[in-house]
Amino acid sequence: MAVRTGALIETLWIMIKTPYLLYLGSTVDPMAIKTSRGIAMFRAEDSIGEFVHGAGALSLGLPRMSFAEAAAAGAKTLILGIANAGGTLSNELIDDCEAALDAGLDIASGLHRRLRDEPRLVAAAKRQGRCLFDVRDASSDLPVGNGLPRGGRRLLTVGTDCSVGKMVTTLHLERAMRARGIAADFRATGQTGILIAGSGVPLDAVVADFISGAIEQLSPARDDNGWDLIEGQGSLFHPSFAGVSTGLLHGAQADGIVICHDPTRPHMRGLPHYAMPLLSDTIEANLRVARLTSPDAVALGIALNTSSLTREEAQDVCCRTAEETGLPTTDPVAFGVEEIIDRIEQCFGKSQQVKPPSA
Amino acid sequence: MAVRTGALIETLWIMIKTPYLLYLGSTVDPMAIKTSRGIAMFRAEDSIGEFVHGAGALSLGLPRMSFAEAAAAGAKTLILGIANAGGTLSNELIDDCEAALDAGLDIASGLHRRLRDEPRLVAAAKRQGRCLFDVRDASSDLPVGNGLPRGGRRLLTVGTDCSVGKMVTTLHLERAMRARGIAADFRATGQTGILIAGSGVPLDAVVADFISGAIEQLSPARDDNGWDLIEGQGSLFHPSFAGVSTGLLHGAQADGIVICHDPTRPHMRGLPHYAMPLLSDTIEANLRVARLTSPDAVALGIALNTSSLTREEAQDVCCRTAEETGLPTTDPVAFGVEEIIDRIEQCFGKSQQVKPPSA
Repeated sequence: MAVRTGALIETLWIMIKTPYLLYLGSTVDPMAIKTSRGIAMFRAEDSIGEFVHGAGALSLGLPRMSFAEAAAAGAKTLILGIANAGGTLSNELIDDCEAALDAGLDIASGLHRRLRDEPRLVAAAKRQGRCLFDVRDASSDLPVGNGLPRGGRRLLTVGTDCSVGKMVTTLHLERAMRARGIAADFRATGQTGILIAGSGVPLDAVVADFISGAIEQLSPARDDNGWDLIEGQGSLFHPSFAGVSTGLLHGAQADGIVICHDPTRPHMRGLPHYAMPLLSDTIEANLRVARLTSPDAVALGIALNTSSLTREEAQDVCCRTAEETGLPTTDPVAFGVEEIIDRIEQCFGKSQQVKPPSA
Repeated sequence: MAVRTGALIETLWIMIKTPYLLYLGSTVDPMAIKTSRGIAMFRAEDSIGEFVHGAGALSLGLPRMSFAEAAAAGAKTLILGIANAGGTLSNELIDDCEAALDAGLDIASGLHRRLRDEPRLVAAAKRQGRCLFDVRDASSDLPVGNGLPRGGRRLLTVGTDCSVGKMVTTLHLERAMRARGIAADFRATGQTGILIAGSGVPLDAVVADFISGAIEQLSPARDDNGWDLIEGQGSLFHPSFAGVSTGLLHGAQADGIVICHDPTRPHMRGLPHYAMPLLSDTIEANLRVARLTSPDAVALGIALNTSSLTREEAQDVCCRTAEETGLPTTDPVAFGVEEIIDRIEQCFGKSQQVKPPSA
């Protein structure tokens, strides 16, 4: 079977194969390559090159490669880590994808328009025995959640709003915990996270009755004393998406939550008529919902996105927030997440260390 | 266009045409004709007959009709108001549906297996210019919720659990409010409710990001001083489905909620490891979530399902619950909903009366 749309979801153990060639194409908007940039940052060891058209295009600082060069260097999958205006696939993009398939690469895409809906790509994948991964496809046979207690430790990032840094915080936690020798695995719930991790569940595409069941399947019991670090979505205070956040909290059965927040945001994303919630209300509401399935859930820290502040302002707001909430507070990108991991070890012990620190 | 799967959802103003012929077929399990029975009860004026095979089958007490007789009597739609074991369509059912289409009837179904996936039925519908309605199909172009305040009054039924009487309570409220001359419209969110109402949104089939948006579309602003009575789903305390309930509360923007409960249920439906929540906690949690989009939301009453109790026991539990909660408490089926409507008029005035009482 050459065309495995959604296959990574239906059988979580089928992963998008590494190493990756990251597609930038002719993109000139730095915001539009956010996903490729995230992969280059958090899967640097798996990102062996970038594919770029022309001289004035963007770069991630990776070796520039043709599809044939990438395949010769061992690349297995071309990642379309770009946003496409209008939701359609341009002729250039389809031409490039066909050439990549012919060069022996699989293709993984988080774009709205599905690869499987492009007859030329389906034909090329069949011809070459290659796979097409549309990571926005949710499985059609997800289970209904059961809320049964399961073994292992789980941490969920939550937020005051959408797009406040939940994915980035979760990835920084994974990296820093692994550096301390703690077994820790990022569990992706959004398109970008799935492309970074190589597997996951696109929660916003799951049918409503299966939200918590999808997360139970994504993050099953584990018995190695390690942690599943689950990427949060939305906010309990966002009137468009709180249902997703609620089902995610229940399915995650989190031992602890990390609360993400942008202290400079004027109102809820896309909704000028909705004020941002207080951090204290956000902590209380998330713990209340989490405790239906995880009665002892605790707050483990606050992650602030201070990218629009000076370093001094950022340090100041972290200090004030830590005082107000009594929780370790940091900007993961600017200051790391060590204090939060310290608190995890205080709350849950160091028993989850399964090998000597590698850093 | 002869085959309109999901058309009632995509354009809410296309309704399933009345009057109805109710299909019982060869069903012998009284539980399996729950939907047909609900339609016979709450849409009696639109139910002109029943279709039954053989002598030992069930009856709803309606005139027994062949498809040709029903069509001659003015029936427009055959309603498959039955549950089918195993989720498949039997040959008998398909034969019957084809005969009904040939007799000039549309068909509406809430069964898991879609009518549109039966080539014989699609062919017959095209041949006869008839419609097939699969009410489990959600629209693929629902909006994302925006939480913008909208005009009109809305009431939402919520519950301690699934299947505690939310649909029946909502339908009784519609009937009793209309009897007082209050403009009131049941807004269906489940398959049975949709077949009873002739339109609605199958919320459990909606993709997670669109739960609240689907309800905003289902129950738009109204300016006639009347009420939309929105059928609730799930429970904030059910770990499988609380995401749906949360999005429904946010999308409904309810002025008031009625809390439904089965006082004899030992644990959450399907989950022996989850205790039923307290009514007081259920009221508090639902109001807290509701107030994100409807800051002045209030509790309007309690509807108990006392069908397994004696009349005296039922009266006793209603009295005790009313004392404990300070809210009018009733079993809508046994004792009606007049006290709850009294409280609605106390809270919101009688201005919503738009015509003299018809009863």
